[in-house]
Parts: sequence; structure tokens; C-alpha cells
Amino acid sequence: MQLKENERIDDLEYKGLKIIQNKNGFCFGIDSVLLSDFAKDIRNNSIVLDLGTGTGILSILLTAKTNLKKIYGIDIQEDVIEMAKRSVVLNRLEDKIEMLHNNVKELETVFEKNSIDSIVTNPPYKKRNTGKTNEAENKFIARHEVSATLEDFISISFSLLKDKGNFYMVHRPERLAEIIVTLKKYKLEPKKIRFVHSTYEEEPKLVLIKAVKNAKEFLKVEKPLIVYDNKGQYTEEILKIYNKN
Amino acid sequence: MQLKENERIDDLEYKGLKIIQNKNGFCFGIDSVLLSDFAKDIRNNSIVLDLGTGTGILSILLTAKTNLKKIYGIDIQEDVIEMAKRSVVLNRLEDKIEMLHNNVKELETVFEKNSIDSIVTNPPYKKRNTGKTNEAENKFIARHEVSATLEDFISISFSLLKDKGNFYMVHRPERLAEIIVTLKKYKLEPKKIRFVHSTYEEEPKLVLIKAVKNAKEFLKVEKPLIVYDNKGQYTEEILKIYNKN
Repeated sequence: MQLKENERIDDLEYKGLKIIQNKNGFCFGIDSVLLSDFAKDIRNNSIVLDLGTGTGILSILLTAKTNLKKIYGIDIQEDVIEMAKRSVVLNRLEDKIEMLHNNVKELETVFEKNSIDSIVTNPPYKKRNTGKTNEAENKFIARHEVSATLEDFISISFSLLKDKGNFYMVHRPERLAEIIVTLKKYKLEPKKIRFVHSTYEEEPKLVLIKAVKNAKEFLKVEKPLIVYDNKGQYTEEILKIYNKN
Repeated sequence: MQLKENERIDDLEYKGLKIIQNKNGFCFGIDSVLLSDFAKDIRNNSIVLDLGTGTGILSILLTAKTNLKKIYGIDIQEDVIEMAKRSVVLNRLEDKIEMLHNNVKELETVFEKNSIDSIVTNPPYKKRNTGKTNEAENKFIARHEVSATLEDFISISFSLLKDKGNFYMVHRPERLAEIIVTLKKYKLEPKKIRFVHSTYEEEPKLVLIKAVKNAKEFLKVEKPLIVYDNKGQYTEEILKIYNKN
């Protein structure tokens, strides 16, 4: 496998999977790993979209954690998608994963409405007008709502999902109110929420959300997902998610 | 202090406060105690409303936990308000607390719009058409949205609160999505949320919410409030809330 300048291959230490990342670009974090686990109830033979796939981490992990039929990773950044395609080849997952260079806003021209079983997304967390502007451009686009907003991600998901199709997202807790209002605006009913805390003595850093298209109102807030125990070691649950115990 | 049939006086074990409860009626629970603590940032000299005060527990505790000027406890149930009035006298809090027999929906005829500093509420948790109907009538009214809905509690709060006035509520996590949408509909911006868990291995049983009228969007989800440690004892934080350490 040929690598470009500044690229490296990282071992995902999960069922032999590997990923190509650019050392100067946006590298995957725990959020994608936790979302892949949160979304592991995706049904067998599902057609899945991964909106804003970046390195492709979420698509790659989901092929190992579920029995999905096909997952399409979509990203606005051409060089990132090109790299993700090589990670697919590296893992010999060409029959399961297809990487597409698109803006999520134009996906109605790519997929049929009401045709997708599940959508997963680790979208940019920050609004367009926030944060440092001196970040490298591709990191900035991965982190900020430059080319599509939260509402764009949610509205296109409503359009493409089948009735009762599932939507899984990881995001920042401080945007939860806006997320819930926008999901409900587009008839993606929030059904399950889980907060992720470094320790149970700290406020959550991330929130995992599952919504179901056209479902009835009833939200299950799950027990907290704690990353470190009081000795500073990974908790049993995190070790299990990383497949290390 | 004269008690009626089936009534008893309970010691709140907090700064000498006591409360009259009806053994066959709705008795206060940990939710009111936790909400009184969650709302203890109510500013000095505030005018406060307690919507659906029931036994008056929340109003009584708030006079001890804050330096509010006056709190009005409102309840639809005449016999419950009459009992709460006697609890006020029992604690010699007549200058701080006034108990009013009203439906929250009619409060615009009682208070001026935009005149209240803070509103606290432990409303009925269940929708009208749910649950056992063989409960005693006054328990049923306390638990179900018979005479006013969640939206009624929130819309009247928007109307009566001053600009930037605070709204504090305790409710069930399964209704969080609906709560957030309704708060935002009435420009009560959710600013702080805290989930209450029996243990950190369990999903939350309650959620505490603070919203601010006409505030900017930014939600702080706080660390979990855990009631029991892994030995089955009250946690330090709960002991502190109950003023026992």
C-alpha cells in the first residue's frame, strides 16, 4: 500500500483493521469508536450512510461490529475521501464500503428518498463562526459547519431514511437542546441518549443520540458511559468496546 | 398545631423545618429536595413562584436554602393548599411564603406579566391518559396532567418571568425531548441539565433543568448526581444536600 507524504497506517487493534491517517489532518478520536459501538444494533443486511466519514473510521468499524450489507461513506473533502478509499482497499472491504465525494446537502441526487435503513454521523461539532481560524483547512472543515450545518445533516437524513429508519449521531452536550429541537422538527424522534464522561465525577464531554424516523415520543437516557475508573484506568466497558478484554 | 384525620407532621431534618403530610395523599419525595438544592442559585430578594406546590415542601426548603424575598406556592387542590398553609404557620414562615389556590393556567389574572424573578416547579410527570386510574383522586392529580399540561406550566412561566428570569424544573428523563422542545418554543432557553441516578451503574430516574428566559443557546450538562455509592450508602453529595454532614 502506497502512502502519501505525512500519511501513516494506524492499527485499529480491532479485528485486524487498519486505517490511513494524515499526521497533519484530522485524526479519528474516541467519539467515532464509541459511536460505532452505540450503533451496533444496526440490523443485518442494512444499507447505511456515514455522513462526513473523514478517514472512514466509522464505516470501517461498523463493518466489523454489525452485519450491514453496504455502507456509503460521504465526505466533502476530496483528498480525505481518496485516503479513505485506500483504507477500504487496505482492509479488503471493497464489497462492503463505498466512499463518495459529495456534500451531504446534494445527496438527494445520489440516493433515492426513503431508501436507507440507517444513517450514522460524526458531524462537525462547531458552528461556522467559532474557533481558531488558523487551523489547517481540512481540520477546520472537519470541525466546523463550513459546508453543511447540523440542520443540513438532519434534514437530509430524514429525507433519505426509510420509515422507522435509524439515525445515530455523536455530538457535544452543549448543543443537545438545538439537536433535539432540530431532530423533532424533521420527525426524527430522539429515542436513546447516552452521555460520555471521562470519569463519573466530571460533566459529559460527548453525547450519543439515536433517533428513529416517525417514531413515537419516548426517550431513554442510558446510564453514563465512563471512560476512566477512579484509578485512571480504562473502565471494563471501554475495554470491551475496544475489544481488549 | 391541629392535625386533621390521616395527617402527620414530618421533621424535614433540615434547619428545624417540618411539614404536614396526609398519609393517604401525595407525600414529598427526593425530587423536591434535589430541586430545592438545584435552584439554590436563586438570587437574594427574588420574587419566586412554586407551580404545583403540593405539600409546600419546595417553597419551605427554598426559604432555608436561598435569601429569596417571597415565594408563592400555587396548587389546584384546595385541601392540599389548606394543609400547606398550616405547614407555613408551623414553620413561622408567613412573611416569606404565601400559598394560593389556583390553576397555573389562570395565573395571568393573579400576577403581572414579566414580574417574577424565578419559577420552580415539580409538575405532574405523567400525561393525562396514562397510569392507574384507581389512585386516590388527589394523588392522581398530583401525578398526572389532569388540570394543566407541561406546555401550560412552561407557557405561563414564560409569560410571568422577567427577561432573563430563571425557570427550574424536575421531571422524568423520558420526557426530556418534549421538555426541551417546549421550553425553546416559549423562549425559555435550557442552560443547565443534571441527571439523577440511583447509582452510576443505572440510568437516570430524574432530570433537573434550569432554563433562562430569552437567553443565548448554550447548554451545560453537569456531572451525574448519584444517590447511592457502591456500598449502598448515600453519597457525600446527597448527605450534603440533606445537610447531614
